Amino acid sequence: MERVAYFNNAATTFPKPEEVYSFTDKFYRKSGVNGGRGQNTSANKLTQETRELLLEMFHCPAKKVVFTPSATEAINIILQGIPMADNYNVYVSPFEHNAVMRVLNHLRGLYKLNIITLSVAEKGLCYDIEKIKYQFGENKPNLVIISHASNMCGVVAPINDICTMSHSYGAINVIDMCQTAGLINTDLSSDIYDFAVFAGHKTLYATFGIAGFICSGNIKPKPLIFGGAGIDSANPEVPDTVPERYEVGSQNTMAIAGLYAALNWIKERNIESIYLKEKDNLNKLLNILSLYENIKIITPADRVERVGIVSCTFNGYSSDNIGQILSEHGIEVRSGLHCAPFAHKFLGTFPAGTIRFSVGFFNTEDDFAMLRQALDYIYENS
Amino acid sequence: MERVAYFNNAATTFPKPEEVYSFTDKFYRKSGVNGGRGQNTSANKLTQETRELLLEMFHCPAKKVVFTPSATEAINIILQGIPMADNYNVYVSPFEHNAVMRVLNHLRGLYKLNIITLSVAEKGLCYDIEKIKYQFGENKPNLVIISHASNMCGVVAPINDICTMSHSYGAINVIDMCQTAGLINTDLSSDIYDFAVFAGHKTLYATFGIAGFICSGNIKPKPLIFGGAGIDSANPEVPDTVPERYEVGSQNTMAIAGLYAALNWIKERNIESIYLKEKDNLNKLLNILSLYENIKIITPADRVERVGIVSCTFNGYSSDNIGQILSEHGIEVRSGLHCAPFAHKFLGTFPAGTIRFSVGFFNTEDDFAMLRQALDYIYENS
Repeated sequence: MERVAYFNNAATTFPKPEEVYSFTDKFYRKSGVNGGRGQNTSANKLTQETRELLLEMFHCPAKKVVFTPSATEAINIILQGIPMADNYNVYVSPFEHNAVMRVLNHLRGLYKLNIITLSVAEKGLCYDIEKIKYQFGENKPNLVIISHASNMCGVVAPINDICTMSHSYGAINVIDMCQTAGLINTDLSSDIYDFAVFAGHKTLYATFGIAGFICSGNIKPKPLIFGGAGIDSANPEVPDTVPERYEVGSQNTMAIAGLYAALNWIKERNIESIYLKEKDNLNKLLNILSLYENIKIITPADRVERVGIVSCTFNGYSSDNIGQILSEHGIEVRSGLHCAPFAHKFLGTFPAGTIRFSVGFFNTEDDFAMLRQALDYIYENS
Repeated sequence: MERVAYFNNAATTFPKPEEVYSFTDKFYRKSGVNGGRGQNTSANKLTQETRELLLEMFHCPAKKVVFTPSATEAINIILQGIPMADNYNVYVSPFEHNAVMRVLNHLRGLYKLNIITLSVAEKGLCYDIEKIKYQFGENKPNLVIISHASNMCGVVAPINDICTMSHSYGAINVIDMCQTAGLINTDLSSDIYDFAVFAGHKTLYATFGIAGFICSGNIKPKPLIFGGAGIDSANPEVPDTVPERYEVGSQNTMAIAGLYAALNWIKERNIESIYLKEKDNLNKLLNILSLYENIKIITPADRVERVGIVSCTFNGYSSDNIGQILSEHGIEVRSGLHCAPFAHKFLGTFPAGTIRFSVGFFNTEDDFAMLRQALDYIYENS
């Protein structure tokens, strides 16, 4: 089938704004030289302006942006690099991705870590702040890692409440904003947010190849990757300064060009209007899914904030089966565990997994009509 | 000045073939979804075909391609992940980049390593195979790392001779092909080549964001970065299989599209004709530079194979000064240490550094005419 209705925006947003495609191509054709590895300034200027746009978006002009090729790498740099010791209490949300859990699993081979799940009510999927307060009192947090929004069920965590508490215990707070950066207007200026990770190709509507984290620069993780930084070449060690300490190897200025265009696209529309559009598409999706009695939706309570990600199961079918049938009808979703087995265990959908539908800014009425046709077909044949 | 004559191809080749720009844009607009994170197959198919094109280029269909975001990261994965122990003898070429030397510096903090420079005659810059044979006899090699071509002076290492010897001692051989992949026709099918690193954006004429290494898969470095691989999600560890073990996080299919187009572009022309064109441009460059008595060129002996990279110094000027003047005349070069202080120490140009001119396939007569004008200006004003 030629035409595809794309409901896999949590994996990567698609399509991108026209400005992202055209500016990336134009900039790279004209200025695709090596920023920091010659006298060329347009690539360096673009990189600097892109950092400033990110800090403006997150209302934290005094913080620093570290670029990495992927959010997975950003999380690895942070978690493998920050101080760690035996008997540390590491809190995670019940919705963590393998980009976090597999790093923690590795670190557990090096340290005796006490990994604790932040309390979330199984019914309604609501973070229980009172219980979390009690958890922190019982086991003082050393490190807290929270998916700002779950990549499986879209639930948004009350990061301000949780990080304020954990910060008062001196914990390091790491927020994974892969599903919220550029979508939920978030003020990161407070020092309760030690590290906030973003992925360019997801809710920021940029391309693959650029991600990173925002930090104060006060806590400096040990470097994970060593190499040339284009400055201070005579030093046998990587530079001590942030972000240069972590940005070794050639900078991906093509992807930065796309991020620059995407950030301007978001800024022009303003972030709230993009979120409203996604919520509108989420409601359309939920209205359609709720028409079918063979579909069981994982539904947070009404008071729980959520982004446009919905997981569900289909009576009598495995998620892989449904994924295949939807694909044959031109519906692009993700089926299975979405690299988040920990979250599925919490939700009781492990190991079968779910079908995940995720909307974006660009979903159209045609997409929803195609989805209805495909779901009709499954319903009639089940 | 608008028009730029680009002599910084060793930092990144520029421009790219038209096919690379246009295919990248077209593919990403049409199929910019998340390969391995949905049912979409065009991105996965492209990735697979790109691996096959690389293995075909290097005449090693039975080997494996691991993609990484940068060559620096590939080198880090290899060197930080392979078995290492106190008193290991680690041989490096005298031309190593900080992507190697800074990793070794880090490893020296963990192990007592004996880092030995492969013997190269200072006059003529010729690898001395007899002396290297003697070196290996005196201190059995455990690990050998060689820049296939120096990013500073273009000297090509006789990798077959050296790796055959070191392999007979059971050493692990790592070849850095950043300045030769796609330029020098190299057969990597032999098991003397344990790891060969490539950078898409350099001599392969692809874009930033894609690099990697070619290996047999028999020696499996410990993973450096942990995260979701899109398969085997329920496993708390990264998969054991190569390449999945190292390819965590979303694959950069946009950059892979560019690499795919670039590999086809090279294949259509055939690799030898591209090298001939670069050699032709190198000769033009050398002929021009040799006209000026104020320029001292670092010159390998006639019998030494070299790629299109030339380092030189200008009497009475610092390299940064000359870089600035050339830039004002629209000549893009790289000045300083080129992230290779170790190489400069060997060549006696540390810490002042050099001016590095590097040609590529796309240099034009206009570029050389502009270069002459700029060098005339410097000569007349010095």
